Amino acid sequence: MTEDKALTRTDFPWRLTLATRWADNDQYGHVNNVTYYSYFDTAVNRHLIEVAGQNPQGDGPIGVVVETGCRFLRPISFPDMIEVGIKIKKLGTSSVTYQLGIFVHGQDAPAAVGHFVHVYVDRKTFRSVPVPPDLRMALGALHVES
Amino acid sequence: MTEDKALTRTDFPWRLTLATRWADNDQYGHVNNVTYYSYFDTAVNRHLIEVAGQNPQGDGPIGVVVETGCRFLRPISFPDMIEVGIKIKKLGTSSVTYQLGIFVHGQDAPAAVGHFVHVYVDRKTFRSVPVPPDLRMALGALHVES
Amino acid sequence: MTEDKALTRTDFPWRLTLATRWADNDQYGHVNNVTYYSYFDTAVNRHLIEVAGQNPQGDGPIGVVVETGCRFLRPISFPDMIEVGIKIKKLGTSSVTYQLGIFVHGQDAPAAVGHFVHVYVDRKTFRSVPVPPDLRMALGALHVES
Amino acid sequence: MTEDKALTRTDFPWRLTLATRWADNDQYGHVNNVTYYSYFDTAVNRHLIEVAGQNPQGDGPIGVVVETGCRFLRPISFPDMIEVGIKIKKLGTSSVTYQLGIFVHGQDAPAAVGHFVHVYVDRKTFRSVPVPPDLRMALGALHVES
Repeated sequence: MTEDKALTRTDFPWRLTLATRWADNDQYGHVNNVTYYSYFDTAVNRHLIEVAGQNPQGDGPIGVVVETGCRFLRPISFPDMIEVGIKIKKLGTSSVTYQLGIFVHGQDAPAAVGHFVHVYVDRKTFRSVPVPPDLRMALGALHVES
Repeated sequence: MTEDKALTRTDFPWRLTLATRWADNDQYGHVNNVTYYSYFDTAVNRHLIEVAGQNPQGDGPIGVVVETGCRFLRPISFPDMIEVGIKIKKLGTSSVTYQLGIFVHGQDAPAAVGHFVHVYVDRKTFRSVPVPPDLRMALGALHVES
Repeated sequence: MTEDKALTRTDFPWRLTLATRWADNDQYGHVNNVTYYSYFDTAVNRHLIEVAGQNPQGDGPIGVVVETGCRFLRPISFPDMIEVGIKIKKLGTSSVTYQLGIFVHGQDAPAAVGHFVHVYVDRKTFRSVPVPPDLRMALGALHVES
Repeated sequence: MTEDKALTRTDFPWRLTLATRWADNDQYGHVNNVTYYSYFDTAVNRHLIEVAGQNPQGDGPIGVVVETGCRFLRPISFPDMIEVGIKIKKLGTSSVTYQLGIFVHGQDAPAAVGHFVHVYVDRKTFRSVPVPPDLRMALGALHVES
């Protein structure tokens, strides 16, 4: 498996450009570690809504986050523009494991690399259900063998 | 003075496009009122850094926020793209009063209209100082008589 | 009307103690202006849920925030403990206007004073409805003539 | 090593009680995954400041976050009160690895279990330095062999 630090922007087949916000910086003048997870969350959900056709306000299954993690490699700071890259590392029966990279816009070396695991559940009962077929197809396009 | 509700995008001479984030929505499914102020903060500081040449990490005077306010006119929701418009309503000796508008990208009618008052202070003593001349010139370009 | 700066803790009949968080501070080392509104939001909703018996997950009317504002008087910083005080300034047919004060724990002079206006609406149609009678009674106890 | 799910409140020798905030909930009505890291950050820094005598505004070495992770086991929701527990899993020459647990107040089974790695660096050069001796002593008291 490619080492996290060796990953570059083009290893992530779907990428979203985001603006940092003033409040993202903490009192040491860099984006706070917590905020990176907000970038992950936003990228995963933008892909689900815009590419995979999911509707958070609908009544279909939803992805519940069961695990996340991040390694922080280089600082970023407001007002940096960033790119968040997504690929799928594992597409299970009811779970989806994403690998994510945060890049300062235009740089190839990641500022951070993380993972994010969704388990699909029924919105009412919270019992796990299979990843819906249309969603599986959209996610499959981001599934990169490593 | 133009009524808040009657303001449109082009009443604001400087505008910044921002992406909403997943966590901006609260449990009623719309962007939480608190988050609008984060959009204001980000737009004001992006303008100060990118147009007016301010450096938050430097040692010059800084703007301390002494008052803000917002009227919420229409809901917005992740994943909306928004525009934040800025104009200067009052350019005092040491204070700057901004008027801000939040627009869903491409819409002319504001989702929210607010104000934001900076007082410039010495970074060490926190005593008020005159708005620095180069900053005054940059802000003057956004000063719209009403 | 009492001037904002002259208000003290005991002018607010209901008060909530909250802990600041690391990320509340911005890069100047003080709690960011945006975050004060999060304290307001939390105090108003804690009162609604714990004292006034509202249920955000139910199907009754909800309060939509139509206007907020804040004057910042003294800085606060993580790890300060704070108190958020609430009183009701105006109890209209379908709207409720709160006045709020933020205090560093144990101090009488406010760090900030703000207002917050809810309009009650039907959760489905978003049309305004009268403030429900039981809620009106609970809020009435915080209604202080000024 | 004790399995994450089997950890209970009393496995964590230092615990901090925190209030959730309205904005912590996302549109599915539970505390958003991102926010748990804000609880971690707050607990680690409260301990550093209040117990270990660190001063974020001083000029001594600072802890830079190089890795975090979290497993989400049970949902929590505003207005829950929570406890954040800390123990030290590894006290290296210049790095400190914390294990953290999030508990709904009064419950023994964790809602989430995570880790958080600080590397101590010189505040100016960002080069790693040994954990300062007084800090090492304070952290040592939370070092639990597993």
